[in-house]
Amino acid sequence: MEASERFEPVLSEADAGGAAPLLARTGTLYGVGMGPGDPDYLTLKALRVLERAPLLVHFCKKGKRGNARTIADALVRDPAREFPLVYPYTTELPPDHADYVSALAAFYDDAAGKLADHLGAGRDVAILSEGDPFFYGSFMHLWRRLKERFPVEVIPGVTGMSGCWTRANTPITWGDDVLTVLPATLSPEALAAQLRGTDAAVIMKLGRHLPKVRAALAEAGLLARAIYVERGTMAGETIVPLAEKADDSAPYFSMVLVPGEGRRP
Amino acid sequence: MEASERFEPVLSEADAGGAAPLLARTGTLYGVGMGPGDPDYLTLKALRVLERAPLLVHFCKKGKRGNARTIADALVRDPAREFPLVYPYTTELPPDHADYVSALAAFYDDAAGKLADHLGAGRDVAILSEGDPFFYGSFMHLWRRLKERFPVEVIPGVTGMSGCWTRANTPITWGDDVLTVLPATLSPEALAAQLRGTDAAVIMKLGRHLPKVRAALAEAGLLARAIYVERGTMAGETIVPLAEKADDSAPYFSMVLVPGEGRRP
Repeated sequence: MEASERFEPVLSEADAGGAAPLLARTGTLYGVGMGPGDPDYLTLKALRVLERAPLLVHFCKKGKRGNARTIADALVRDPAREFPLVYPYTTELPPDHADYVSALAAFYDDAAGKLADHLGAGRDVAILSEGDPFFYGSFMHLWRRLKERFPVEVIPGVTGMSGCWTRANTPITWGDDVLTVLPATLSPEALAAQLRGTDAAVIMKLGRHLPKVRAALAEAGLLARAIYVERGTMAGETIVPLAEKADDSAPYFSMVLVPGEGRRP
Repeated sequence: MEASERFEPVLSEADAGGAAPLLARTGTLYGVGMGPGDPDYLTLKALRVLERAPLLVHFCKKGKRGNARTIADALVRDPAREFPLVYPYTTELPPDHADYVSALAAFYDDAAGKLADHLGAGRDVAILSEGDPFFYGSFMHLWRRLKERFPVEVIPGVTGMSGCWTRANTPITWGDDVLTVLPATLSPEALAAQLRGTDAAVIMKLGRHLPKVRAALAEAGLLARAIYVERGTMAGETIVPLAEKADDSAPYFSMVLVPGEGRRP
Protein backbone atom coordinates (compact mmCIF):
# COMPACT_ATOMS: atom_id res chain seq x y z
CA MET A 1 0.00 0.00 0.00
CA GLU A 2 1.34 3.44 -0.89
CA ALA A 3 1.77 5.92 1.91
CA SER A 4 -0.64 8.28 0.15
CA GLU A 5 -3.38 5.65 0.21
CA ARG A 6 -3.20 5.32 3.96
CA PHE A 7 -4.30 8.87 4.50
CA GLU A 8 -7.35 8.69 2.28
CA PRO A 9 -10.49 10.20 3.73
CA VAL A 10 -12.55 7.58 5.49
CA LEU A 11 -15.88 8.14 3.81
CA SER A 12 -16.13 6.90 0.27
CA GLU A 13 -19.18 9.08 -0.39
CA ALA A 14 -17.09 12.16 0.25
CA ASP A 15 -14.52 11.01 -2.28
CA ALA A 16 -17.09 10.75 -5.03
CA GLY A 17 -17.62 14.51 -4.90
CA GLY A 18 -19.36 15.95 -7.93
CA ALA A 19 -18.14 13.32 -10.38
CA ALA A 20 -20.64 10.67 -11.42
CA PRO A 21 -19.07 7.23 -10.91
CA LEU A 22 -19.95 4.56 -13.47
CA LEU A 23 -21.16 2.24 -10.73
CA ALA A 24 -22.78 3.16 -7.46
CA ARG A 25 -20.11 3.07 -4.77
CA THR A 26 -20.56 0.76 -1.86
CA GLY A 27 -19.52 1.57 1.66
CA THR A 28 -16.37 0.25 3.27
CA LEU A 29 -16.42 -2.22 6.13
CA TYR A 30 -14.02 -1.09 8.87
CA GLY A 31 -12.84 -3.38 11.62
CA VAL A 32 -11.73 -0.88 14.23
CA GLY A 33 -9.34 -2.07 16.94
CA MET A 34 -10.53 -0.29 20.10
CA GLY A 35 -7.58 -1.28 22.24
CA PRO A 36 -7.59 -2.77 25.73
CA GLY A 37 -10.00 -0.37 27.45
CA ASP A 38 -8.34 2.96 28.18
CA PRO A 39 -9.53 5.30 25.39
CA ASP A 40 -6.08 6.90 25.38
CA TYR A 41 -4.77 3.69 23.82
CA LEU A 42 -6.88 4.08 20.69
CA THR A 43 -4.90 4.64 17.50
CA LEU A 44 -5.00 7.84 15.45
CA LYS A 45 -6.56 5.97 12.54
CA ALA A 46 -9.22 4.36 14.71
CA LEU A 47 -10.25 7.74 16.08
CA ARG A 48 -10.55 9.17 12.55
CA VAL A 49 -12.85 6.35 11.51
CA LEU A 50 -14.96 6.68 14.67
CA GLU A 51 -15.39 10.38 14.07
CA ARG A 52 -16.66 9.96 10.53
CA ALA A 53 -18.25 6.58 9.87
CA PRO A 54 -22.04 6.85 9.68
CA LEU A 55 -22.59 3.52 11.45
CA LEU A 56 -20.78 2.52 14.64
CA VAL A 57 -21.51 -1.14 15.27
CA HIS A 58 -20.85 -2.78 18.62
CA PHE A 59 -21.55 -6.21 20.04
CA CYS A 60 -23.27 -6.46 23.41
CA LYS A 61 -25.32 -8.64 25.67
CA LYS A 62 -29.02 -7.93 26.12
CA GLY A 63 -29.57 -4.92 28.35
CA LYS A 64 -25.86 -4.10 28.58
CA ARG A 65 -23.59 -1.64 26.89
CA GLY A 66 -20.74 -3.45 25.15
CA ASN A 67 -17.22 -2.73 26.28
CA ALA A 68 -16.07 -1.56 22.84
CA ARG A 69 -18.90 0.97 22.87
CA THR A 70 -17.92 2.10 26.37
CA ILE A 71 -14.40 2.83 25.12
CA ALA A 72 -15.80 4.83 22.21
CA ASP A 73 -18.05 6.84 24.54
CA ALA A 74 -15.03 8.68 25.89
CA LEU A 75 -14.29 10.02 22.39
CA VAL A 76 -17.49 10.12 20.34
CA ARG A 77 -21.01 10.31 21.67
CA ASP A 78 -23.54 10.07 18.90
CA PRO A 79 -26.51 7.82 19.63
CA ALA A 80 -27.84 8.33 16.11
CA ARG A 81 -24.89 6.46 14.64
CA GLU A 82 -24.89 3.60 17.15
CA PHE A 83 -25.79 0.17 15.84
CA PRO A 84 -25.83 -2.51 18.56
CA LEU A 85 -25.68 -6.20 17.71
CA VAL A 86 -27.15 -8.10 20.64
CA TYR A 87 -25.77 -11.61 21.12
CA PRO A 88 -28.46 -14.30 21.24
CA TYR A 89 -29.54 -15.05 24.76
CA THR A 90 -28.10 -18.32 25.99
CA THR A 91 -28.32 -20.24 29.18
CA GLU A 92 -25.15 -22.00 30.20
CA LEU A 93 -24.38 -23.78 26.95
CA PRO A 94 -20.62 -24.24 26.43
CA PRO A 95 -19.26 -22.37 23.40
CA ASP A 96 -18.62 -25.58 21.45
CA HIS A 97 -22.14 -26.98 22.00
CA ALA A 98 -23.87 -27.57 18.66
CA ASP A 99 -26.99 -25.59 19.64
CA TYR A 100 -24.91 -22.60 20.71
CA VAL A 101 -22.79 -22.72 17.56
CA SER A 102 -25.86 -22.80 15.34
CA ALA A 103 -27.54 -19.97 17.29
CA LEU A 104 -24.39 -17.89 16.89
CA ALA A 105 -24.13 -18.71 13.18
CA ALA A 106 -27.71 -17.52 12.66
CA PHE A 107 -26.94 -14.37 14.64
CA TYR A 108 -23.87 -13.58 12.52
CA ASP A 109 -25.74 -14.35 9.29
CA ASP A 110 -28.53 -11.99 10.28
CA ALA A 111 -26.13 -9.25 11.40
CA ALA A 112 -24.10 -9.56 8.20
CA GLY A 113 -27.31 -9.21 6.18
CA LYS A 114 -28.26 -6.00 7.99
CA LEU A 115 -24.79 -4.51 7.53
CA ALA A 116 -24.75 -5.55 3.86
CA ASP A 117 -27.86 -3.45 3.30
CA HIS A 118 -26.09 -0.37 4.64
CA LEU A 119 -22.84 -1.10 2.79
CA GLY A 120 -24.76 -1.70 -0.44
CA ALA A 121 -26.44 1.68 0.01
CA GLY A 122 -23.00 3.32 0.14
CA ARG A 123 -22.71 3.78 3.89
CA ASP A 124 -19.44 2.99 5.63
CA VAL A 125 -19.78 0.64 8.56
CA ALA A 126 -17.31 0.63 11.47
CA ILE A 127 -17.32 -2.45 13.67
CA LEU A 128 -15.92 -1.58 17.09
CA SER A 129 -13.69 -4.46 18.14
CA GLU A 130 -12.12 -4.84 21.58
CA GLY A 131 -8.34 -5.12 21.36
CA ASP A 132 -7.18 -6.06 17.86
CA PRO A 133 -9.85 -7.08 15.31
CA PHE A 134 -7.93 -10.11 13.95
CA PHE A 135 -6.91 -11.46 17.38
CA TYR A 136 -9.87 -13.54 18.60
CA GLY A 137 -13.15 -11.62 18.86
CA SER A 138 -16.42 -11.35 16.98
CA PHE A 139 -15.49 -9.00 14.16
CA MET A 140 -13.88 -11.83 12.19
CA HIS A 141 -17.20 -13.65 11.90
CA LEU A 142 -18.80 -10.69 10.13
CA TRP A 143 -15.63 -10.03 8.12
CA ARG A 144 -15.74 -13.63 6.86
CA ARG A 145 -19.31 -13.14 5.62
CA LEU A 146 -18.80 -9.75 3.98
CA LYS A 147 -15.21 -9.55 2.72
CA GLU A 148 -15.88 -10.82 -0.80
CA ARG A 149 -18.65 -8.31 -1.44
CA PHE A 150 -17.41 -5.03 0.01
CA PRO A 151 -14.14 -3.15 0.46
CA VAL A 152 -12.68 -3.85 3.88
CA GLU A 153 -10.14 -2.06 6.01
CA VAL A 154 -8.96 -3.45 9.31
CA ILE A 155 -7.30 -1.10 11.80
CA PRO A 156 -5.11 -3.01 14.24
CA GLY A 157 -5.36 -2.21 17.93
CA VAL A 158 -3.42 -2.57 21.13
CA THR A 159 -4.43 -6.03 22.39
CA GLY A 160 -6.02 -6.62 25.76
CA MET A 161 -2.97 -8.62 26.80
CA SER A 162 -0.62 -5.70 25.98
CA GLY A 163 -2.79 -3.47 28.13
CA CYS A 164 -2.64 -6.00 30.97
CA TRP A 165 1.13 -6.52 31.01
CA THR A 166 1.61 -2.76 30.75
CA ARG A 167 -0.49 -2.11 33.85
CA ALA A 168 1.05 -5.08 35.64
CA ASN A 169 4.33 -3.25 35.04
CA THR A 170 6.07 -6.32 33.68
CA PRO A 171 7.79 -7.04 30.39
CA ILE A 172 6.22 -10.23 29.01
CA THR A 173 9.11 -11.42 26.78
CA TRP A 174 12.89 -10.87 26.81
CA GLY A 175 15.53 -11.94 24.31
CA ASP A 176 14.54 -15.24 22.74
CA ASP A 177 11.58 -16.07 25.00
CA VAL A 178 8.76 -18.14 23.51
CA LEU A 179 5.32 -16.69 24.30
CA THR A 180 2.24 -18.91 24.27
CA VAL A 181 -1.28 -17.49 24.32
CA LEU A 182 -3.71 -20.03 25.73
CA PRO A 183 -7.46 -20.08 26.11
CA ALA A 184 -8.39 -21.36 29.57
CA THR A 185 -10.92 -23.65 27.89
CA LEU A 186 -8.20 -26.22 27.08
CA SER A 187 -8.13 -29.51 28.98
CA PRO A 188 -6.06 -29.61 32.21
CA GLU A 189 -3.51 -31.87 30.50
CA ALA A 190 -3.19 -29.63 27.43
CA LEU A 191 -2.84 -26.51 29.59
CA ALA A 192 -0.09 -28.05 31.71
CA ALA A 193 1.76 -29.39 28.66
CA GLN A 194 1.66 -26.01 26.93
CA LEU A 195 2.84 -24.25 30.08
CA ARG A 196 5.73 -26.67 30.56
CA GLY A 197 6.88 -26.02 26.99
CA THR A 198 6.99 -22.22 26.99
CA ASP A 199 8.97 -19.35 28.52
CA ALA A 200 6.10 -16.87 28.89
CA ALA A 201 2.33 -17.28 28.75
CA VAL A 202 -0.92 -15.38 28.59
CA ILE A 203 -4.05 -17.30 29.61
CA MET A 204 -7.32 -15.78 28.46
CA LYS A 205 -11.06 -16.53 28.80
CA LEU A 206 -10.64 -17.48 32.46
CA GLY A 207 -14.24 -17.40 33.71
CA ARG A 208 -15.11 -20.65 35.48
CA HIS A 209 -11.81 -22.20 34.35
CA LEU A 210 -9.64 -20.40 36.90
CA PRO A 211 -9.26 -23.37 39.32
CA LYS A 212 -8.10 -25.55 36.40
CA VAL A 213 -5.66 -22.84 35.26
CA ARG A 214 -4.29 -22.49 38.78
CA ALA A 215 -3.69 -26.25 39.00
CA ALA A 216 -1.99 -26.36 35.58
CA LEU A 217 0.31 -23.49 36.55
CA ALA A 218 1.22 -25.24 39.79
CA GLU A 219 1.95 -28.48 37.91
CA ALA A 220 4.21 -26.60 35.48
CA GLY A 221 6.01 -24.89 38.36
CA LEU A 222 4.83 -21.43 37.28
CA LEU A 223 2.35 -20.46 39.97
CA ALA A 224 4.80 -18.17 41.77
CA ARG A 225 5.34 -16.14 38.59
CA ALA A 226 1.67 -15.89 37.60
CA ILE A 227 -0.10 -12.53 37.77
CA TYR A 228 -3.86 -12.13 37.73
CA VAL A 229 -5.21 -9.05 35.89
CA GLU A 230 -8.89 -8.12 35.89
CA ARG A 231 -10.27 -5.29 33.76
CA GLY A 232 -6.77 -4.18 32.77
CA THR A 233 -6.63 -0.44 31.83
CA MET A 234 -10.35 -0.09 32.70
CA ALA A 235 -12.27 1.22 35.68
CA GLY A 236 -12.20 -1.40 38.43
CA GLU A 237 -8.78 -2.70 37.41
CA THR A 238 -7.32 -5.36 39.74
CA ILE A 239 -3.77 -6.71 39.55
CA VAL A 240 -2.49 -9.26 42.05
CA PRO A 241 -0.12 -12.21 42.13
CA LEU A 242 -2.35 -15.19 41.31
CA ALA A 243 -1.11 -16.92 44.46
CA GLU A 244 -2.63 -14.06 46.50
CA LYS A 245 -6.00 -14.14 44.80
CA ALA A 246 -8.13 -15.92 47.33
CA ASP A 247 -11.19 -16.99 45.41
CA ASP A 248 -11.58 -18.58 42.04
CA SER A 249 -14.17 -16.35 40.40
CA ALA A 250 -12.95 -14.47 37.35
CA PRO A 251 -15.01 -12.22 35.09
CA TYR A 252 -14.79 -12.24 31.29
CA PHE A 253 -12.26 -9.39 31.19
CA SER A 254 -9.52 -11.11 33.12
CA MET A 255 -6.38 -12.99 32.26
CA VAL A 256 -3.32 -14.58 33.80
CA LEU A 257 0.17 -13.46 32.76
CA VAL A 258 3.35 -15.50 33.20
CA PRO A 259 6.24 -13.13 32.34
CA GLY A 260 9.29 -14.58 30.61
CA GLU A 261 12.73 -14.44 32.16
CA GLY A 262 14.94 -14.44 29.05
CA ARG A 263 18.27 -12.81 28.23
CA ARG A 264 18.91 -9.48 29.98
CA PRO A 265 22.31 -8.03 29.08
CA MET B 1 -5.22 3.97 38.40
CA GLU B 2 -7.92 6.63 38.54
CA ALA B 3 -9.26 7.94 35.24
CA SER B 4 -8.20 11.44 36.26
CA GLU B 5 -4.60 10.32 36.69
CA ARG B 6 -4.39 9.04 33.14
CA PHE B 7 -4.92 12.45 31.70
CA GLU B 8 -2.24 14.19 33.70
CA PRO B 9 -0.03 16.55 31.73
CA VAL B 10 3.07 14.81 30.52
CA LEU B 11 5.66 17.24 31.76
CA SER B 12 6.25 17.17 35.45
CA GLU B 13 7.99 20.57 35.36
CA ALA B 14 4.77 22.12 34.14
CA ASP B 15 2.88 20.59 37.04
CA ALA B 16 5.14 22.19 39.59
CA GLY B 17 3.88 25.62 38.57
CA GLY B 18 4.52 28.37 41.08
CA ALA B 19 4.43 26.13 44.13
CA ALA B 20 7.78 25.18 45.63
CA PRO B 21 7.94 21.42 46.11
CA LEU B 22 9.84 20.17 49.12
CA LEU B 23 12.09 18.07 46.94
CA ALA B 24 13.22 18.76 43.40
CA ARG B 25 11.01 16.81 41.03
CA THR B 26 12.62 14.30 38.74
CA GLY B 27 11.52 13.65 35.19
CA THR B 28 9.39 10.69 34.17
CA LEU B 29 10.72 7.87 32.02
CA TYR B 30 8.22 7.07 29.26
CA GLY B 31 8.36 3.87 27.24
CA VAL B 32 6.40 4.87 24.16
CA GLY B 33 4.99 2.10 21.98
CA MET B 34 5.45 3.37 18.41
CA GLY B 35 3.38 0.63 16.79
CA PRO B 36 4.28 -1.53 13.79
CA GLY B 37 5.46 1.18 11.39
CA ASP B 38 2.52 3.09 9.93
CA PRO B 39 2.37 6.34 11.97
CA ASP B 40 -1.43 6.14 11.78
CA TYR B 41 -1.25 3.23 14.18
CA LEU B 42 0.26 5.29 16.98
CA THR B 43 -1.97 5.70 20.03
CA LEU B 44 -3.44 9.00 21.18
CA LYS B 45 -1.38 8.84 24.37
CA ALA B 46 1.86 8.11 22.53
CA LEU B 47 1.33 11.12 20.28
CA ARG B 48 0.74 13.35 23.28
CA VAL B 49 4.00 12.25 24.88
CA LEU B 50 5.92 12.67 21.61
CA GLU B 51 4.60 16.19 21.23
CA ARG B 52 5.71 17.28 24.68
CA ALA B 53 8.62 15.28 26.07
CA PRO B 54 11.87 17.29 25.95
CA LEU B 55 13.96 14.21 25.04
CA LEU B 56 12.97 11.74 22.33
CA VAL B 57 15.30 8.77 22.61
CA HIS B 58 15.66 6.21 19.83
CA PHE B 59 17.92 3.23 19.28
CA CYS B 60 19.75 2.95 15.97
CA LYS B 61 22.71 1.43 14.21
CA LYS B 62 25.69 3.60 13.37
CA GLY B 63 24.98 5.87 10.42
CA LYS B 64 21.31 4.83 10.22
CA ARG B 65 18.08 6.33 11.36
CA GLY B 66 16.25 3.95 13.68
CA ASN B 67 12.85 2.69 12.66
CA ALA B 68 11.10 4.03 15.74
CA ARG B 69 12.48 7.49 14.90
CA THR B 70 11.31 7.13 11.30
CA ILE B 71 7.77 6.48 12.55
CA ALA B 72 7.96 9.57 14.75
CA ASP B 73 9.19 11.71 11.85
CA ALA B 74 5.76 11.58 10.28
CA LEU B 75 4.30 13.27 13.36
CA VAL B 76 6.97 15.32 15.11
CA ARG B 77 10.11 16.74 13.56
CA ASP B 78 12.29 18.34 16.12
CA PRO B 79 15.99 17.57 15.81
CA ALA B 80 16.75 19.52 18.99
CA ARG B 81 14.86 16.95 21.08
CA GLU B 82 16.32 13.88 19.38
CA PHE B 83 18.57 11.67 21.46
CA PRO B 84 19.98 8.71 19.50
CA LEU B 85 21.45 5.70 21.26
CA VAL B 86 23.79 4.00 18.81
CA TYR B 87 24.17 0.23 19.33
CA PRO B 88 27.77 -0.89 19.71
CA TYR B 89 29.25 -1.95 16.40
CA THR B 90 29.48 -5.71 16.13
CA THR B 91 30.72 -8.07 13.51
CA GLU B 92 28.73 -11.26 13.20
CA LEU B 93 28.71 -12.28 16.84
CA PRO B 94 25.54 -14.24 17.70
CA PRO B 95 23.32 -12.48 20.27
CA ASP B 96 24.09 -15.03 22.99
CA HIS B 97 27.88 -14.79 22.57
CA ALA B 98 29.50 -13.66 25.84
CA ASP B 99 31.44 -10.83 24.17
CA TYR B 100 28.31 -9.48 22.53
CA VAL B 101 26.30 -9.72 25.75
CA SER B 102 28.95 -7.85 27.71
CA ALA B 103 29.26 -5.15 25.01
CA LEU B 104 25.50 -4.71 25.08
CA ALA B 105 25.43 -4.59 28.88
CA ALA B 106 28.05 -1.82 28.86
CA PHE B 107 26.05 0.03 26.21
CA TYR B 108 22.84 -0.14 28.25
CA ASP B 109 24.68 0.87 31.44
CA ASP B 110 26.15 3.90 29.71
CA ALA B 111 22.85 4.87 28.10
CA ALA B 112 20.99 4.51 31.40
CA GLY B 113 23.57 6.77 33.03
CA LYS B 114 23.07 9.49 30.44
CA LEU B 115 19.29 9.31 30.73
CA ALA B 116 19.50 9.33 34.53
CA ASP B 117 21.31 12.66 34.34
CA HIS B 118 18.42 14.16 32.38
CA LEU B 119 15.76 12.56 34.56
CA GLY B 120 17.53 13.71 37.69
CA ALA B 121 17.53 17.26 36.31
CA GLY B 122 13.74 17.07 36.00
CA ARG B 123 13.50 16.41 32.28
CA ASP B 124 11.03 13.82 31.00
CA VAL B 125 12.58 11.21 28.74
CA ALA B 126 10.54 9.36 26.09
CA ILE B 127 12.07 6.17 24.74
CA LEU B 128 10.62 5.43 21.31
CA SER B 129 10.00 1.68 21.17
CA GLU B 130 8.99 -0.22 18.05
CA GLY B 131 5.73 -2.09 18.56
CA ASP B 132 4.92 -2.52 22.25
CA PRO B 133 7.59 -1.57 24.82
CA PHE B 134 7.15 -4.67 27.01
CA PHE B 135 7.08 -7.17 24.11
CA TYR B 136 10.71 -7.93 23.26
CA GLY B 137 12.79 -4.89 22.31
CA SER B 138 15.48 -2.70 23.85
CA PHE B 139 13.41 -0.38 26.04
CA MET B 140 13.15 -3.02 28.77
CA HIS B 141 16.91 -3.03 29.29
CA LEU B 142 16.88 0.67 30.16
CA TRP B 143 13.66 0.32 32.13
CA ARG B 144 15.30 -2.40 34.24
CA ARG B 145 18.18 -0.06 35.07
CA LEU B 146 16.10 3.04 35.85
CA LYS B 147 12.74 1.91 37.23
CA GLU B 148 13.69 2.02 40.92
CA ARG B 149 15.00 5.57 40.74
CA PHE B 150 12.49 7.46 38.59
CA PRO B 151 8.76 7.49 37.89
CA VAL B 152 7.98 5.36 34.85
CA GLU B 153 5.03 5.23 32.49
CA VAL B 154 4.80 2.66 29.74
CA ILE B 155 2.41 3.30 26.85
CA PRO B 156 1.47 0.08 25.10
CA GLY B 157 1.56 -0.06 21.32
CA VAL B 158 0.19 -2.07 18.43
CA THR B 159 2.72 -4.90 18.03
CA GLY B 160 4.61 -5.52 14.83
CA MET B 161 2.86 -8.88 14.53
CA SER B 162 -0.59 -7.23 14.71
CA GLY B 163 0.48 -4.89 11.93
CA CYS B 164 1.64 -7.85 9.85
CA TRP B 165 -1.47 -9.99 10.15
CA THR B 166 -3.62 -6.93 9.51
CA ARG B 167 -1.84 -6.19 6.23
CA ALA B 168 -1.75 -9.89 5.33
CA ASN B 169 -5.54 -9.63 5.67
CA THR B 170 -5.80 -12.70 7.85
CA PRO B 171 -7.18 -13.27 11.32
CA ILE B 172 -4.46 -14.95 13.36
CA THR B 173 -6.64 -16.71 15.98
CA TRP B 174 -10.25 -17.93 16.04
CA GLY B 175 -12.27 -19.42 18.88
CA ASP B 176 -10.01 -21.41 21.17
CA ASP B 177 -6.85 -21.35 19.04
CA VAL B 178 -3.50 -21.48 20.82
CA LEU B 179 -1.04 -18.88 19.49
CA THR B 180 2.70 -19.39 19.89
CA VAL B 181 5.20 -16.61 19.26
CA LEU B 182 8.59 -18.06 18.39
CA PRO B 183 11.99 -16.51 17.80
CA ALA B 184 13.59 -18.08 14.73
CA THR B 185 16.78 -18.46 16.76
CA LEU B 186 15.46 -21.68 18.38
CA SER B 187 17.00 -25.01 17.38
CA PRO B 188 15.42 -26.84 14.41
CA GLU B 189 14.03 -29.49 16.78
CA ALA B 190 12.56 -26.95 19.21
CA LEU B 191 10.98 -24.97 16.36
CA ALA B 192 9.37 -28.08 14.85
CA ALA B 193 8.12 -29.28 18.25
CA GLN B 194 6.58 -25.89 19.07
CA LEU B 195 4.93 -25.70 15.66
CA ARG B 196 3.48 -29.20 15.97
CA GLY B 197 1.94 -28.27 19.32
CA THR B 198 0.13 -25.07 18.38
CA ASP B 199 -2.83 -23.88 16.30
CA ALA B 200 -1.37 -20.57 15.15
CA ALA B 201 2.16 -19.18 15.14
CA VAL B 202 4.20 -16.05 14.63
CA ILE B 203 7.90 -16.55 13.93
CA MET B 204 10.08 -13.49 14.46
CA LYS B 205 13.76 -12.55 14.08
CA LEU B 206 14.04 -14.47 10.81
CA GLY B 207 17.27 -13.09 9.35
CA ARG B 208 19.63 -15.91 8.41
CA HIS B 209 17.33 -18.44 10.11
CA LEU B 210 14.73 -18.53 7.33
CA PRO B 211 15.88 -21.85 5.77
CA LYS B 212 15.65 -23.51 9.20
CA VAL B 213 12.18 -22.01 9.77
CA ARG B 214 11.02 -23.21 6.39
CA ALA B 215 12.19 -26.74 7.14
CA ALA B 216 10.53 -26.75 10.58
CA LEU B 217 7.24 -25.55 9.07
CA ALA B 218 7.42 -28.30 6.43
CA GLU B 219 8.11 -30.91 9.10
CA ALA B 220 5.11 -29.71 11.12
CA GLY B 221 2.89 -29.79 8.01
CA LEU B 222 2.33 -26.02 8.12
CA LEU B 223 4.27 -24.75 5.12
CA ALA B 224 1.17 -24.36 2.94
CA ARG B 225 -0.42 -22.05 5.55
CA ALA B 226 2.67 -19.94 6.21
CA ILE B 227 2.74 -16.29 5.09
CA TYR B 228 5.92 -14.26 4.80
CA VAL B 229 5.62 -10.55 5.71
CA GLU B 230 8.48 -8.10 5.25
CA ARG B 231 8.29 -4.51 6.50
CA GLY B 232 4.60 -4.88 7.38
CA THR B 233 2.75 -1.50 7.36
CA MET B 234 5.97 0.27 6.22
CA ALA B 235 7.28 1.49 2.87
CA GLY B 236 8.56 -1.48 0.90
CA GLU B 237 6.04 -3.89 2.42
CA THR B 238 6.07 -7.41 0.93
CA ILE B 239 3.51 -10.11 1.69
CA VAL B 240 3.68 -13.52 -0.03
CA PRO B 241 2.90 -17.13 0.80
CA LEU B 242 6.16 -18.47 2.20
CA ALA B 243 6.03 -21.32 -0.33
CA GLU B 244 6.22 -18.70 -3.11
CA LYS B 245 9.17 -16.81 -1.65
CA ALA B 246 12.01 -18.05 -3.80
CA ASP B 247 15.11 -17.08 -1.84
CA ASP B 248 15.97 -17.40 1.79
CA SER B 249 17.16 -13.90 2.62
CA ALA B 250 15.05 -12.08 5.18
CA PRO B 251 15.73 -8.66 6.69
CA TYR B 252 15.29 -7.81 10.34
CA PHE B 253 11.77 -6.48 9.91
CA SER B 254 10.22 -9.68 8.63
CA MET B 255 8.20 -12.48 10.14
CA VAL B 256 6.28 -15.61 9.24
CA LEU B 257 2.61 -15.96 10.18
CA VAL B 258 0.72 -19.24 10.47
CA PRO B 259 -2.95 -18.29 10.88
CA GLY B 260 -5.14 -20.46 13.09
CA GLU B 261 -8.17 -22.27 11.76
CA GLY B 262 -10.34 -22.50 14.89
CA ARG B 263 -14.08 -22.37 15.48
CA ARG B 264 -16.03 -20.25 12.99
CA PRO B 265 -19.77 -20.32 13.65
